[in-house]
Amino acid sequence: MTTYVAVCGAGVAGERDVAWAEEVGRLLAREGAVVVCGGLGGVMEAVARGASAEGGTSIGILPGSDRTGQASGLSYSIPTGMGEARNALVVRTADAVIAIGGEFGTLSEIALALKIGVPVIGLGTWELAKTGRPVLAFPAAEDPAEAVRLALAAASGGRAP
Amino acid sequence: MTTYVAVCGAGVAGERDVAWAEEVGRLLAREGAVVVCGGLGGVMEAVARGASAEGGTSIGILPGSDRTGQASGLSYSIPTGMGEARNALVVRTADAVIAIGGEFGTLSEIALALKIGVPVIGLGTWELAKTGRPVLAFPAAEDPAEAVRLALAAASGGRAP
Amino acid sequence: MTTYVAVCGAGVAGERDVAWAEEVGRLLAREGAVVVCGGLGGVMEAVARGASAEGGTSIGILPGSDRTGQASGLSYSIPTGMGEARNALVVRTADAVIAIGGEFGTLSEIALALKIGVPVIGLGTWELAKTGRPVLAFPAAEDPAEAVRLALAAASGGRAP
Amino acid sequence: MTTYVAVCGAGVAGERDVAWAEEVGRLLAREGAVVVCGGLGGVMEAVARGASAEGGTSIGILPGSDRTGQASGLSYSIPTGMGEARNALVVRTADAVIAIGGEFGTLSEIALALKIGVPVIGLGTWELAKTGRPVLAFPAAEDPAEAVRLALAAASGGRAP
Repeated sequence: MTTYVAVCGAGVAGERDVAWAEEVGRLLAREGAVVVCGGLGGVMEAVARGASAEGGTSIGILPGSDRTGQASGLSYSIPTGMGEARNALVVRTADAVIAIGGEFGTLSEIALALKIGVPVIGLGTWELAKTGRPVLAFPAAEDPAEAVRLALAAASGGRAP
Repeated sequence: MTTYVAVCGAGVAGERDVAWAEEVGRLLAREGAVVVCGGLGGVMEAVARGASAEGGTSIGILPGSDRTGQASGLSYSIPTGMGEARNALVVRTADAVIAIGGEFGTLSEIALALKIGVPVIGLGTWELAKTGRPVLAFPAAEDPAEAVRLALAAASGGRAP
Repeated sequence: MTTYVAVCGAGVAGERDVAWAEEVGRLLAREGAVVVCGGLGGVMEAVARGASAEGGTSIGILPGSDRTGQASGLSYSIPTGMGEARNALVVRTADAVIAIGGEFGTLSEIALALKIGVPVIGLGTWELAKTGRPVLAFPAAEDPAEAVRLALAAASGGRAP
Repeated sequence: MTTYVAVCGAGVAGERDVAWAEEVGRLLAREGAVVVCGGLGGVMEAVARGASAEGGTSIGILPGSDRTGQASGLSYSIPTGMGEARNALVVRTADAVIAIGGEFGTLSEIALALKIGVPVIGLGTWELAKTGRPVLAFPAAEDPAEAVRLALAAASGGRAP
């Protein structure tokens, strides 16, 4: 059975996040997982490039109504024409989500995944709190290898009911 | 011109949040704003009830494919059949968002609003951080009156470009 | 209980369809039904204008991500940012659909309504066939009054299971 | 550049349509096109099976919120959780659409494709008329080979502006 792992992060990302995303893409491809992402630049492009470099498969679920501006390394893409509402589809398609760095779009994907019961692994991403107390809603990995290991373990555990 | 304010919060909510939501609904109705919400229980039901008590209008944008389970006080409802992807529509419909308490669905609405440039006001809701440092992405109100005041001021300022 | 009737038709429509739509809007408003439409020009604008002239309520479910270009007579609007995928929401929100004239967007709304079991009434709209034989999938009304009468009767009968 | 062809048809289909769909899947795979479909039974399953038999790729864009009930031959699937609103995504993803037989869901896909300018080829599917006169909105193929030939020619011509 195919394992799908969504990798979420900003469309304009710093060096650290891009390098991490590319490495995550490579590692997921080596493990035979299908990479899912938002299909644009930054972290999304880097993870597609990493997967591609290892002969893996990546699917970009695009916000626009056509393929304009999609990441060059993607294997396949789905133009949704739904704008940011497509973030829900990115996480629904995934058995686990790895969030790398990221801005508000990434935060929405983390939140939507947690809401519908898809496991999330963080890598240098958002931290949550309520009334001053940290809410540890998902594990934080130290590096790409740990993120991929945790994501694949969580993915094989299936979704929360 | 009509002002739309989305009020987001959990479908199963504690007493404080329910009381706040009802008061927010009352205050928004008194100011002539249309209340938008996710249309189910908890905070969503309370804000609709509050708006209704003051003769105001509320619109529920429902996740389900019909009106089953919708909050009783709603003026109108839109069954989207899109599940949690409807959260994007709740915030898109709004000129400002008030987030009260809340779980992961609320967090996704905060994040989606910030992503697309709709101003957010927090009321006892999520706090954000990165690498241990708080990210003050939106103002936190002390009480319903302040939340409504800030939301209406932000709404009249228009969306961020 | 509120009855919602969607009125579908082209955004650029001929005189006959615009006159019919305005009359349908008037009649629905007189009967206390909430008019739902796609929120743009042509038939959509005319039905909103008709409803408004009788003090009725209309809701426009817009394809765009903001309210730019919405029909002036609408009571409320929902910018979905989903493009033509919003057609599914227009029909889901309705207890019955009246299709007036129309182009391919209207045909998609007829088809989606029939698919999910929302009754459709035609008024000078598409006719369907397979291998040369007519498929009478929905009743054709002769004029606005008959369309409204049939739609309200169908709406009160509830959806097909 | 990848060519995507959506093949639309009923989830419960007769022998003729199933045989046609499987043959269309085979032919598209031989030409290197990616098959897109709604991912469920009947025509959708048959086209995925045909593509798979020739080592081709098929992507199912599912209405449900998970992969339950998806066609067994699919290469990849996208659970949208959007119900019939996913029909818009099926046609948006395609450079051309082949409609085989079909019920109202297929009609909605034909209509949505025509609306957004994706070329449609019919194969034993719906015929359209207005006020008694046929509307020849798309070419009708005689058999799978002609349908695939016409679809690939239309796909390479690009979308209408």
